[in-house]
Amino acid sequence: MLSIDEAIEAILDHCQPRPAWSTHLINAQGLILDEEIVADIDLPPFDKATMDGYAVRSSDLEEAGDHRLQVMEEITAGRMPSRPIEPGESSRIMTGAPLPSGADAVVMVEKSRLDGSFVILPGPVVPGQNRMVRGREMEAGDLLLGRGTYLDATSLGLIASAGREKVLAIPKPSVAIVTTGDELVPFQQQPQSGQIRDTNGLMLGLLAVDRGASVIGDWASVRDDEEPLEMTLRCALSSAEVLLVSGGVSAGTRDLVPSTLIKLGVEPVFHKVNVKPGKPIWFGVGPSRGERPGVLVFGLPGNPVSGVVGFLLFVRPALEALAGHSPKRTQLASFPLGQPYNHRGDRPTYHPARLDQGKLIPLDWAGSADLRTVALADGFAAFPAGDRPFAPGEFVPFLPKFPSTQYA
Amino acid sequence: MLSIDEAIEAILDHCQPRPAWSTHLINAQGLILDEEIVADIDLPPFDKATMDGYAVRSSDLEEAGDHRLQVMEEITAGRMPSRPIEPGESSRIMTGAPLPSGADAVVMVEKSRLDGSFVILPGPVVPGQNRMVRGREMEAGDLLLGRGTYLDATSLGLIASAGREKVLAIPKPSVAIVTTGDELVPFQQQPQSGQIRDTNGLMLGLLAVDRGASVIGDWASVRDDEEPLEMTLRCALSSAEVLLVSGGVSAGTRDLVPSTLIKLGVEPVFHKVNVKPGKPIWFGVGPSRGERPGVLVFGLPGNPVSGVVGFLLFVRPALEALAGHSPKRTQLASFPLGQPYNHRGDRPTYHPARLDQGKLIPLDWAGSADLRTVALADGFAAFPAGDRPFAPGEFVPFLPKFPSTQYA
Repeated sequence: MLSIDEAIEAILDHCQPRPAWSTHLINAQGLILDEEIVADIDLPPFDKATMDGYAVRSSDLEEAGDHRLQVMEEITAGRMPSRPIEPGESSRIMTGAPLPSGADAVVMVEKSRLDGSFVILPGPVVPGQNRMVRGREMEAGDLLLGRGTYLDATSLGLIASAGREKVLAIPKPSVAIVTTGDELVPFQQQPQSGQIRDTNGLMLGLLAVDRGASVIGDWASVRDDEEPLEMTLRCALSSAEVLLVSGGVSAGTRDLVPSTLIKLGVEPVFHKVNVKPGKPIWFGVGPSRGERPGVLVFGLPGNPVSGVVGFLLFVRPALEALAGHSPKRTQLASFPLGQPYNHRGDRPTYHPARLDQGKLIPLDWAGSADLRTVALADGFAAFPAGDRPFAPGEFVPFLPKFPSTQYA
Repeated sequence: MLSIDEAIEAILDHCQPRPAWSTHLINAQGLILDEEIVADIDLPPFDKATMDGYAVRSSDLEEAGDHRLQVMEEITAGRMPSRPIEPGESSRIMTGAPLPSGADAVVMVEKSRLDGSFVILPGPVVPGQNRMVRGREMEAGDLLLGRGTYLDATSLGLIASAGREKVLAIPKPSVAIVTTGDELVPFQQQPQSGQIRDTNGLMLGLLAVDRGASVIGDWASVRDDEEPLEMTLRCALSSAEVLLVSGGVSAGTRDLVPSTLIKLGVEPVFHKVNVKPGKPIWFGVGPSRGERPGVLVFGLPGNPVSGVVGFLLFVRPALEALAGHSPKRTQLASFPLGQPYNHRGDRPTYHPARLDQGKLIPLDWAGSADLRTVALADGFAAFPAGDRPFAPGEFVPFLPKFPSTQYA
């Protein structure tokens, strides 16, 4: 049986980033850039004022004390100065406006006092004060951003400042979801005897969206019968880049998912990982479809918490790799336990826990079918295999439930 | 001039969460729940097997060593057992299937050996082994989630398991964006002399979306002229819940935004905060519109980095409060400096910095017009007012650029 790390490695071996698409900047947030962005102009394109005030020759105001300069004109942003600044002269200037030639500094307006057509300004003024020289941010031809850059609001703003409307970026991976099980009914319905509401389709879809994937359609729910299962899986294999199948991967007599996938040409890579919950996880790669690589197929156990842990441990790194994120292994941050905890179990165990002021509090949990506890948790404390007591203050790795939480 | 904390407090004083809407679970991720969710049924609805194996009476297998039991039937998930288990009997059972009456434990199939219609199972078996009793996760009537719960995939899965298709949740706040400035041209264009590409509208929109808001339409760009400015702002004030105006709030002669907003009935709350960059920030509240409260209006300085810092410090908490997040003050995490840094400045300063293996590296930065440095940063190191050298290892608070980064 593979270890968690071996399983992740086997998965990443089959993840090539998708080819880049030309994408409008407004749609590119969260994607990975797949080209080099080069400055087309100098920025600023001229020496510019960084304060509202008076453009001056600093040599006129080298000494401390008041200096009296003639005010020649007003330069607002978006307009060019009409004349240079000669000794003894100044011009009113606004933030972002071009400095007139001759001027090499700006004295902020709050320090000025007008006197007719003259202004009184305090020295000393040093060259370059409140001035941003042409090309200080970038010069035409500069490499601004390289391949592999994560596109956030500011990097996209920088690309816009180079005049680009679109970029080449790796698109979001597409995910299809199939849930299986004779016992399942749509969650909106009242279950009859022996039945369970199907919540896994919804949860896996939301997890995929939260991690930057796009989910194709709704999820399909199918009984543990060969014919409908085969039909549904065949259809899913032709659509998405990643297929998540929930249920039907254990050792039960109705666990038909692996055999049906193999029949449909999916090459099995592994079945079972040494982890709790989620041991029966299955992974394989579909047949390639022309130029498109084969679908990555994850068979996740049907117990809801097994599915969540399987997603976070194994599906998430695959989605990130497909989206072009650098394939660095995720190192979990560790936190001190806030209370003693007696771990029992012969597999590495992901146990629901809260983070309370930086301390990990393992929750009372009834196992992989108990979603309620997970809904109240911040994530999972990762205990190693083997029975042993953990003391308060001992550091334990922590797998967070969602990417957007800051654990300060 | 207000301090940062005073300004945030003044903003939050005007933020009431919006009324809840009935929202499909699939659209509710990231929202705040505004009702109590109660279990409608017991879960599990029956004593259920948590492993594939054999349902047994544990009293038959109290002792160590092999026990031989007759196999009565096979119980798959979704079906009810047809008969109870008497002493000396067992039934093959699948994960998730209901235990037959009489049985109080499951022995996993991997430990079994079939012998005709009998099965050999090892003892000792304790009562409750591999069984989840009815109602262990929840009992009908239990309060599952309270008002104010953050809705992630697992809490939405839990709500689905209570049979709900929709929930009452606080909707995303809506944001409108207006950029102002005679010097601005659409970023796709080639700027002429004195002109600058308008990147702020794009950036503010992406930041708002990244923080869970919905942006109304595209942004409007308008010249520093009273009439078009008034028309554009009037229109924006009638649409969104939050209005971000970029530029026109400094001390320049063409800075018409505050006076125009006041003319349109926006009540000014503050102008200027003791922060660098971004000091000229303006905040006010529009006239209430029938039952809808007035628009929250932020006038952000036009320098791109001032806008980003102003958004992160002041707009973000407002968006969170409107979305129903608990109004706790965001405590920034501190990190040790990775190199000496000589801070100069009479205002608290947010300086672009990278986080490199847990150490803060302040970047070489040309000030509030220098977006390029910010695009390469992970966020901003927050230095207090006053000139002083900082030694490597000194802890400095850090304002991250985006919520999705884990700083492990």
